[in-house]
Amino acid sequence: MSSSYDNWQCPLPISDYPKILLAHGGGGRLMHDLIDHIFIAAFGADTLDAEHDGARLDPGSDKLAFTTDSYVVHPLFFPGGDIGLLAVYGTVNDLAMCGARPKYLSAGFILEEGLETETLWKIAVSMRQAADKARVGIVTGDTKVVDKGHGHGIYINIAGIGIIEHNLVIGPRRIRDGDAIILNGDIGRHGIAIIAAREGLEFETTIESDCAPLADSVMRLIDDGIEAHCLRDLTRGGLATAAIEIARSSGTEILLDEKSISVNEQVRGACELLGYDPLYIANEGRYLAFVPKHQAQRALEIMREATPNIEPAIVGRVGAGGDRGEVTLKSAIGSERILDMLSGEQLPRIC
Amino acid sequence: MSSSYDNWQCPLPISDYPKILLAHGGGGRLMHDLIDHIFIAAFGADTLDAEHDGARLDPGSDKLAFTTDSYVVHPLFFPGGDIGLLAVYGTVNDLAMCGARPKYLSAGFILEEGLETETLWKIAVSMRQAADKARVGIVTGDTKVVDKGHGHGIYINIAGIGIIEHNLVIGPRRIRDGDAIILNGDIGRHGIAIIAAREGLEFETTIESDCAPLADSVMRLIDDGIEAHCLRDLTRGGLATAAIEIARSSGTEILLDEKSISVNEQVRGACELLGYDPLYIANEGRYLAFVPKHQAQRALEIMREATPNIEPAIVGRVGAGGDRGEVTLKSAIGSERILDMLSGEQLPRIC
Repeated sequence: MSSSYDNWQCPLPISDYPKILLAHGGGGRLMHDLIDHIFIAAFGADTLDAEHDGARLDPGSDKLAFTTDSYVVHPLFFPGGDIGLLAVYGTVNDLAMCGARPKYLSAGFILEEGLETETLWKIAVSMRQAADKARVGIVTGDTKVVDKGHGHGIYINIAGIGIIEHNLVIGPRRIRDGDAIILNGDIGRHGIAIIAAREGLEFETTIESDCAPLADSVMRLIDDGIEAHCLRDLTRGGLATAAIEIARSSGTEILLDEKSISVNEQVRGACELLGYDPLYIANEGRYLAFVPKHQAQRALEIMREATPNIEPAIVGRVGAGGDRGEVTLKSAIGSERILDMLSGEQLPRIC
Repeated sequence: MSSSYDNWQCPLPISDYPKILLAHGGGGRLMHDLIDHIFIAAFGADTLDAEHDGARLDPGSDKLAFTTDSYVVHPLFFPGGDIGLLAVYGTVNDLAMCGARPKYLSAGFILEEGLETETLWKIAVSMRQAADKARVGIVTGDTKVVDKGHGHGIYINIAGIGIIEHNLVIGPRRIRDGDAIILNGDIGRHGIAIIAAREGLEFETTIESDCAPLADSVMRLIDDGIEAHCLRDLTRGGLATAAIEIARSSGTEILLDEKSISVNEQVRGACELLGYDPLYIANEGRYLAFVPKHQAQRALEIMREATPNIEPAIVGRVGAGGDRGEVTLKSAIGSERILDMLSGEQLPRIC
């Protein structure tokens, strides 16, 4: 679902400058106006420390996760989200995949001269709403403005700090023979939503991005005692690339069962039309959890409770034969093939 | 001083791709090559966790500072530095200004399709050398590639985490009447070095940027028991803008003495030629320290020991009259004027 921008009125003093100028990044009066009237207004003065270039934190734990991601998606707004919401959820999800509870975010903006100020405001509001939903604070930030023709409206970097409240070690090397592989929902919606918006493709109904924060789902698994061995969100390169990366770093054999991998009918149709393989399409709200086989049913239930609107499924297992570092897909008709990494991606700039 | 790139040979497999392709940001094989052969090679596999999109940290303290900065400077290489070194020092300095010891950095790259791979390698090596000098680790990263014509070679975001090892509260509100204001060196070199490189201006000798890490100087002050009330690096907007910001947030009167503010002769000449005021020119290795008057001499000594190549000076004081939120400059000939913020900056994209 899209953010509801209508609740928030763009603060008036900024509308004196309907477009971003180079001077908005120059450290002077206009930059201070931008910070006060857009960023502090949207993100809240309580968290964003305007007196400093940095935030002082007291996370209450000394085991932390730290991550960064830049977002260059185009178009800036697409069915189901926008670059701001995507940026917040993307970084929150990277922290969740480390088994960390996301807590603090930074926001670095690279604005292109000439960007509509109203657009920046909408994106900032969307970021605040996404941060509230994911229960994180945007605590520090930075703004640069580049000359027209050297950007694409707006690029956003979000770094994040999360706290690790447990003693599980989560990572590919923890994967064991026989582990069940669970996928939390259908795949391919984000990539197809972006390409449709970019190319003006129309389908019977609008395909919305799957953009969503994953931390709640992951925290529920861990709090319930599920021994998650490895967690991975399925962004650039999609499910196939994530599985291949994990197989290689763990040196295990991953077996995936195509017919248990859910793909929305319209996404499947779009992929056939465009010649894409849904296994390689980016998602922004989907992840794989590798869990011990005996906990798989319980993990499924927890994931279903966390996000009742999508249906998790066991989509594969770690091969008992072990150590091949490969991913084998059993197709819907029963044949088997080894999945390989693409050199790039089918769709650039989807995040 | 420039980094010495010559010690490091660009790793061979990357030279098969002399220019960055969109596919290098696509999550596939080429992106993995880029991470392995450029980023892991330069930053070190020991710190950069290749298996995760995030780093797990154990900072050993629960009081932290967190900051972010994006770097869009043009040209990418300039006398005294480059965008990579600037990015590392810039974020390190923001942490130091919070009174924190810089510890972990993230690196987010936005590359423009067509960037020379060798250029990226030089910048990565320079970042590693700067990180070593500032005693921080680059522990997590991200790479995006944007279409040609939507970037400017390379933009870098660096977020940083520092640890706070003392109980001082540092910030504008701590400033007291009578505080001495110390500046750690001469001003204006960074901005003039950039404009000279950008516009091809030639001076008798080359003006080098003042780019430098400030954490060591700040940590020495704090370790010695100097009660630093406020610290501020003099980046975009220069000394004048920093002083005005501090006067406003603290509600105090700041008195600056122009003749004690050192400006290199060639920088002064360039400013006269170009119509710039050195007080508003950006620096990347200069800061103001507000300290109790009775500690000023000791603080000067410590700052001099920390960086023997530049000369710190007491450049002003906090007015006993208090509460005006203004900055008054006593000029070299004895007249007084109130300094005001510029709307933008004299020079865009200096950092």
